Amino acid sequence: MTIYNQTSPAPSGGLAAFGVGEFISRLQQIVGQSNVVFHPDDLLVFEYDGSIDRGMPRAVVFPLNTHEVSRVMALCCQARVPVVGRGSGTGLSGGAISHPDGIQIAFTRMNRILEVDRENRHAVVEPGVINLDLDTHARRYGMRYAPDPSSQRACSLGGNIAENAGGPHCLAYGTTTNHVLGMEIVLEDGTVTALGSLARETPGYDLRGVFTGSEGTFGIATRISVRLLPLPEAVKTYLGIFPGVESACTAVSAVIGHGIVPAALEMIDALSIRAVQNVSDAGYPEDAGAVLLIELEGLQDEVDETGLEVEAALWDTGASEVRAAAAAAEREQLWKGRKGALGALGSLAPNYYLVDGVVPRTQLAPVLRQVAEVGRKHNVPIANVFHAGDGNLHPCLLFDERQPGALEKITAAGAEVLAVCVAAGGALTGEHGVGLEKKEQMPLVYTETDMAVMRRVRDAFAPRNNINPGKIFPDGHRHQPAPHRPTPGMPA
Amino acid sequence: MTIYNQTSPAPSGGLAAFGVGEFISRLQQIVGQSNVVFHPDDLLVFEYDGSIDRGMPRAVVFPLNTHEVSRVMALCCQARVPVVGRGSGTGLSGGAISHPDGIQIAFTRMNRILEVDRENRHAVVEPGVINLDLDTHARRYGMRYAPDPSSQRACSLGGNIAENAGGPHCLAYGTTTNHVLGMEIVLEDGTVTALGSLARETPGYDLRGVFTGSEGTFGIATRISVRLLPLPEAVKTYLGIFPGVESACTAVSAVIGHGIVPAALEMIDALSIRAVQNVSDAGYPEDAGAVLLIELEGLQDEVDETGLEVEAALWDTGASEVRAAAAAAEREQLWKGRKGALGALGSLAPNYYLVDGVVPRTQLAPVLRQVAEVGRKHNVPIANVFHAGDGNLHPCLLFDERQPGALEKITAAGAEVLAVCVAAGGALTGEHGVGLEKKEQMPLVYTETDMAVMRRVRDAFAPRNNINPGKIFPDGHRHQPAPHRPTPGMPA
Repeated sequence: MTIYNQTSPAPSGGLAAFGVGEFISRLQQIVGQSNVVFHPDDLLVFEYDGSIDRGMPRAVVFPLNTHEVSRVMALCCQARVPVVGRGSGTGLSGGAISHPDGIQIAFTRMNRILEVDRENRHAVVEPGVINLDLDTHARRYGMRYAPDPSSQRACSLGGNIAENAGGPHCLAYGTTTNHVLGMEIVLEDGTVTALGSLARETPGYDLRGVFTGSEGTFGIATRISVRLLPLPEAVKTYLGIFPGVESACTAVSAVIGHGIVPAALEMIDALSIRAVQNVSDAGYPEDAGAVLLIELEGLQDEVDETGLEVEAALWDTGASEVRAAAAAAEREQLWKGRKGALGALGSLAPNYYLVDGVVPRTQLAPVLRQVAEVGRKHNVPIANVFHAGDGNLHPCLLFDERQPGALEKITAAGAEVLAVCVAAGGALTGEHGVGLEKKEQMPLVYTETDMAVMRRVRDAFAPRNNINPGKIFPDGHRHQPAPHRPTPGMPA
Repeated sequence: MTIYNQTSPAPSGGLAAFGVGEFISRLQQIVGQSNVVFHPDDLLVFEYDGSIDRGMPRAVVFPLNTHEVSRVMALCCQARVPVVGRGSGTGLSGGAISHPDGIQIAFTRMNRILEVDRENRHAVVEPGVINLDLDTHARRYGMRYAPDPSSQRACSLGGNIAENAGGPHCLAYGTTTNHVLGMEIVLEDGTVTALGSLARETPGYDLRGVFTGSEGTFGIATRISVRLLPLPEAVKTYLGIFPGVESACTAVSAVIGHGIVPAALEMIDALSIRAVQNVSDAGYPEDAGAVLLIELEGLQDEVDETGLEVEAALWDTGASEVRAAAAAAEREQLWKGRKGALGALGSLAPNYYLVDGVVPRTQLAPVLRQVAEVGRKHNVPIANVFHAGDGNLHPCLLFDERQPGALEKITAAGAEVLAVCVAAGGALTGEHGVGLEKKEQMPLVYTETDMAVMRRVRDAFAPRNNINPGKIFPDGHRHQPAPHRPTPGMPA
């Protein structure tokens, strides 16, 4: 495996030109001595995020407020030291991986929920607030924060904005970008500005929207205003067990074709079921070909009525069994397999490589067939656990990094899986970002002109390219995947 | 009144440098002789849009396809002739008004619905397609296009994208930006590129989002892919009659506070009611202080159940009467007053000036009180017809342009009304854009830094500023409002 970008050009200047000791000392003056980490041993945990890439920063700073972030950014800009923001490091495409000559700004200390407004249904938070903490807090007021990435117990709002994070319930409620009302941001030179507002629409350009999902390359959000939604009166979860992926795909089309928009619609295939059942009994039959999880939300009558339609659609399309749960504990049980599926893959192989593509919903069945063919061709087992409702695939290629040539094989197979998605009218990524992982594949979906416009928009925010450089755009610096180690109990 | 920007600097070069006759002739070679209009008499209708500004283009071209648009743009860029796209000219902030040395590209001939995909619920259209035509077409397939500006019988999808158009039903479904999946666009130099895709998320930056609402300053969309929604099983409309605006505002809070998200929630105040009843009987009591229109959509049971809650909330907050309608014809009757309200203002005064602000929903009552005070102070009658559900105000300042000083008085009062919105935590515009009308007021809500970032993003798309120049950003070239003539039967 290759460590991040050792061969990629550092911005001119850099730490060395400035004097490392002097630079660290200035960082300490800004955030306090104890809030700068720079000893290699302490930096080890900042070398990773949830992706297969890695890169060791020269230092990590822990600012307390916008002013400190601004001063750190200004200093780094002056010293030509690349900066990257880091939330909880759960990203899956290398977005928070540091440039080898750069530093990380970590938001562990900026983790306060500043305001919850019940009447106007919004909250104002700092970027280090954990997704689930915000949701839990909002529920005390009868509301919730809708985007729920699988990593919601760990991931931060700032990281969610950088990656425009999705999650099972984004099928009904949209991804992070649909829930961010406004932000205070710091640009690479330390300038503090604001995007959006508490109003739904703002005059001028929608920079709030383009900032969301810019993978930390435009600036750093230091204060975030998000929309909260009222809690539904009723929630009901269905588990449909199918003989194979094809019939489960037909069921997905049947449910959507009925005009039903479930709050979530997830699929787990046979290989993933085997993994789940290896780890703990989620109650999935060992011989099931695929499992669908469907969650409905709304008024009690609505959920009851729609539920009957969902049940009928599942039976009609060949379900061998349909289970339903309305109480929280029972619903949790049905979700258990889904939530633990990625971690459970560790029971099948030491490593996996998660490919993130999205295809038109009607193309799900043929695309999954072709993905399976790619797996057979390369002799790579592929497990599928994904947001079926919006065609957001997550094929996981299983491998053992210790086998010679394994990484090369996986990289080749992964690229073919993505090409299959693109050929079916899909896109390169659903929700995990481009980052380091997929930057060389951007030309699959974008022309040079497309990417030139994107680069110019980045330059509008960050003309010096001093914030999270080397991401998103192909630059010929290939990154070999390093193995991702599944951690049971910690869903990716 | 002042004609558009006669004193503003034209880009260097311009028509004269190129040779007017030669330029027109080249345009004709691209789009065909009959598809270029340049005689002053023929140009008169292109001097206006729905705003109070005006500006005569040097020519208007009617391209048939992307290739022709691209060639026209390239020619204009070469000749330094500013370009502006024009849909149906219903915009309310001067977005489609031409630079005096510029030309308009009108999309009358690019008005085809190219594709409707029932299974994946999307349509692909050309920019000249009329909003209501797309909706009507989609309904044949059991779907609809949700954003419904009041001008939906006339306005085009291309214009909707430029202005990120809203409408009554955007309360539940979001504005245009939430319904645009992807676009083919032409940049100012003629380059053709693509933004977004048919998938919900795309890799890299969300340029689809920032292009939507860029008021024609980034480029021209020549092919548009939009999301279609399934038709609801049931629709029910409520009309609540209130003694005053205050109690109607309380009702708005009560409905939203119940966790209900109506498909639409509109308010019409006493002065507007008088105007409506002057024109035709919409059944509103003459002594009503305000009227609320609330539309619910969903499954039959859901609509019935929520309807009972809405009725209770209306009675509880002081409604003197509540009417309900479920059949299409009866619902149409309840909407009649709302849809004709702006046109009906002509029965009270020869001219009106519509101010477009948005405030947090909880601030509605105090803001409306202050707006009324501004009206009293300047002795200007102000009628309010607006999207109450999301705090999107439309105070209409009534006046007679023939009275000396009337325009100055209205301009001053309008600016005060906007300042009231901003002071209450609101924003300059809800949904009609900045354009020419509000550009000098941008500093009310944005700092120089904010606007510098916006300008740089515009430059990323249009570095020569040759497409729709002179809009959005304050440049010291004030535009005196010209009177808007209400046209009964043609809602603005």
